[in-house]
Amino acid sequence: MRIGLDVMGGDFAPDAIIEGAVDVLPHFSFNEKLVLIGDENSIYRKLNEMNVKPSNFDIIPTTQVIEMGDHPAKAFSQKRNSSIAVGYDMLKKNLLDGFCSAGSTGAMLVGASYTVNVIPGVFRPALATIIPCIDGRDSVILDVGLNPDCKPDVLLQYGLLGSLYAKYVLEVEKPTVGLLNIGAEDTKGTPSVKSAYELMKEDPIIDFVGNVEGNNLFRESMPDVIVCDGFVGNIVLKQTEAFHYICKSRNINDPFFDRIDFESIGGTPIVGINANVVIGHGISKRKAIMNMVLKTRAVVHANLAQKIKEAI
Amino acid sequence: MRIGLDVMGGDFAPDAIIEGAVDVLPHFSFNEKLVLIGDENSIYRKLNEMNVKPSNFDIIPTTQVIEMGDHPAKAFSQKRNSSIAVGYDMLKKNLLDGFCSAGSTGAMLVGASYTVNVIPGVFRPALATIIPCIDGRDSVILDVGLNPDCKPDVLLQYGLLGSLYAKYVLEVEKPTVGLLNIGAEDTKGTPSVKSAYELMKEDPIIDFVGNVEGNNLFRESMPDVIVCDGFVGNIVLKQTEAFHYICKSRNINDPFFDRIDFESIGGTPIVGINANVVIGHGISKRKAIMNMVLKTRAVVHANLAQKIKEAI
Repeated sequence: MRIGLDVMGGDFAPDAIIEGAVDVLPHFSFNEKLVLIGDENSIYRKLNEMNVKPSNFDIIPTTQVIEMGDHPAKAFSQKRNSSIAVGYDMLKKNLLDGFCSAGSTGAMLVGASYTVNVIPGVFRPALATIIPCIDGRDSVILDVGLNPDCKPDVLLQYGLLGSLYAKYVLEVEKPTVGLLNIGAEDTKGTPSVKSAYELMKEDPIIDFVGNVEGNNLFRESMPDVIVCDGFVGNIVLKQTEAFHYICKSRNINDPFFDRIDFESIGGTPIVGINANVVIGHGISKRKAIMNMVLKTRAVVHANLAQKIKEAI
Repeated sequence: MRIGLDVMGGDFAPDAIIEGAVDVLPHFSFNEKLVLIGDENSIYRKLNEMNVKPSNFDIIPTTQVIEMGDHPAKAFSQKRNSSIAVGYDMLKKNLLDGFCSAGSTGAMLVGASYTVNVIPGVFRPALATIIPCIDGRDSVILDVGLNPDCKPDVLLQYGLLGSLYAKYVLEVEKPTVGLLNIGAEDTKGTPSVKSAYELMKEDPIIDFVGNVEGNNLFRESMPDVIVCDGFVGNIVLKQTEAFHYICKSRNINDPFFDRIDFESIGGTPIVGINANVVIGHGISKRKAIMNMVLKTRAVVHANLAQKIKEAI
């Protein structure tokens, strides 16, 4: 298994990315290889500093960087020797089994649709992340940012994509699916959410358990899959981040709050594309990068993209 | 000042409501009167049990109860001697300066539009609640549940309604206003939120500071007023509730988490109607009821409905 890591992406690139990559090594087995994609000099310098042999990795030198301020589509097309463009090219040529980056989310999305493409039958890819539950489970919530406005059939399909994620990555035998809404009754919500409720109720494949409200999150009553549009999901994700910040700043130490830390969660897979790709938080440092790579490995190991292709 | 309290509304009515009412007494001054509206026998029995003289209150006997399962509009029209209907009738006749209930939110809203009415010029009333900030401030967020889908001009007006709330109830001299969104850039969000951004940027009255993201909530970077549609706001409110639950169940005691407790916040005013009305959580017990009444008093004291009428 070969996982590509964009060494140039993220606020603390390249050093923090390389540090995270080094921390991955003890977790990888002999047939797993981490491929560092980025500026060769930086990689050798940092590895030398850390006393780590470059031969632990495959190193793919690139000369360009897509900056956070760049226009994603323009940058992806023009900077053909950037780490993101090279990563996607390698994915497309099957030189990588998975690819991850804490760089420009926009460019990562453009890259997905320009190279590996959306899986035929998928209406809209989604970003799917983990919400930990107080009972020890992990649930998946999607979309958390790609599609702020979702039509009912897109939400229905997120129920399926999320179920596949829960089943194959989180290893939940028969995942339950809830629709994030503002009440338990089927008359609640926006027109799109109300229609999605009807579609999900009738769907023979997903195990729909009805509406789930904000106060069910993190709690025993939380289903395995939470479906929402990317606007609401993004707010939920970032409000969780805010709570983690509050806990840290109040010196509250509790294992549950470690689980809501984005540094532990590591990254967010793009589900619905023809490759296993994970996006990390721009502010990722060493620990978050390590966990982003391990998340990518889990997604590759589950063969999620292939499983979705077969199910759609 | 006369504040009406619906004694029959809420999961723990009437006993918990009367307990909360008794706890209000030491906070009220000689010219403030709490008006208990509900089943006379229950009120006298409970006050007797608590050794509290009924003369501490005005008591308005009612014979009917609007249940949580009732159809709000039908129940409000047919149960004319219910505590909610009587409360609104008294508000309309200026026999009360404010009214609060932990009963059926639907019936409370129907009551507002059937009796005291929306303030002319207000597009859509909103539910406005408090989000505490780690720096000690309180911010106001609206809407948290009335209008799941908001047009841009409604969101713009929420900026104004929220500013008036912050100015007159929270006593913030010049409140800042942020638009809850999924990125800092003005190109982010749904079409409606993007248009609202443009309208708010140009508005000469509110002090618009741009988009605010989920991770700004509770933090120093949170503006005094947070504008969002009722779908997103409701999720934010209830996710906060979930966090409070987690903290309690993990035995985490911290003054900040007391401030996010709905029992401390007490209730949510309906802003934009011709009266000062506060809605409490259905699961309110003694402490939450006391704080709901005190919140109502604060809203009456600020004369919020009148201030909005003058500003619109």
